[in-house]
Amino acid sequence: MEIRPAVEDDWPAIWPIFSAIVAAGETYTYPESLTFEQARGLWMEQPPGVTVVAVHDGLVVGTAKLGPNRPGRGSHVATASFMVDPSVHGRGVGRSLAEHIVGRARDAGYHSMQFNAVVETNTGALSLWHALGFRILGTVPEAFDHPVHGLVGLHVMYLRLADPGRPARPAG
Amino acid sequence: MEIRPAVEDDWPAIWPIFSAIVAAGETYTYPESLTFEQARGLWMEQPPGVTVVAVHDGLVVGTAKLGPNRPGRGSHVATASFMVDPSVHGRGVGRSLAEHIVGRARDAGYHSMQFNAVVETNTGALSLWHALGFRILGTVPEAFDHPVHGLVGLHVMYLRLADPGRPARPAG
Repeated sequence: MEIRPAVEDDWPAIWPIFSAIVAAGETYTYPESLTFEQARGLWMEQPPGVTVVAVHDGLVVGTAKLGPNRPGRGSHVATASFMVDPSVHGRGVGRSLAEHIVGRARDAGYHSMQFNAVVETNTGALSLWHALGFRILGTVPEAFDHPVHGLVGLHVMYLRLADPGRPARPAG
Repeated sequence: MEIRPAVEDDWPAIWPIFSAIVAAGETYTYPESLTFEQARGLWMEQPPGVTVVAVHDGLVVGTAKLGPNRPGRGSHVATASFMVDPSVHGRGVGRSLAEHIVGRARDAGYHSMQFNAVVETNTGALSLWHALGFRILGTVPEAFDHPVHGLVGLHVMYLRLADPGRPARPAG
């Protein structure tokens, strides 16, 4: 499996994964009525952000994006999002993407990585984030309207990337 | 002092407050190079969001905005931002705006209100949020590059608005 930066021509192959995961409604707070073009604008990052695809046998089986969590004086903290084709779940695509993105963020000089809204019932993702060293900083109660479980919490999760004493990436 | 929804013609009076507070660099992660028009797009909310101004003797002395913190399945949680003209600090403008916005969010049926990034050295704001019932859910360490204090934490803060047992506002 290859993981590489996505190009604009990858979007038609990413879109079915994006739309299936958003329609399932269990993990993301994207609006459910997004068009092909609106979703492209939200998922395909512009610099300094980057979007990647995981490709297996010529097929896009997963995607992720990385960028600053906030602009300006918060831009040394990264954030990232991940989507894996539901038909290949359990084969390590998510873990490979996550390791790639964390490595890429470290190489880019980000101080840390923050996830703003990890659905507390998404146990597969939570296990992966914990395995990679992320910890839960706090949980916003009843902040996600889950189609099966009703109102569930959203975790804020965090991984420090910078070595102790290493200066943060300059803001901006 | 009157607090009312802002109209487009209010932006030229809001802009000096916005630009002074962003230039000071102590409380927000907006980019510091925003133009008049770019800042207008970020501060003047579109429905279902709303931007308000506090007016005293015909002058805009503060402003705030309210809207869903996330779209889709997270849209029952509100977020808000506040700016007060530095020349009138300490006269209760911030508290009046905050009470107005919390009441407006409750009336609009939001389940709760979340602040995503309260700078931990912003003790005036913190005292006000605590007085209004907000609590700190967690703190992202070293997530804000403060011009005086260096890297400081960003608090995630939360206030429940819905009565126990009351259903959340439908998502969307």
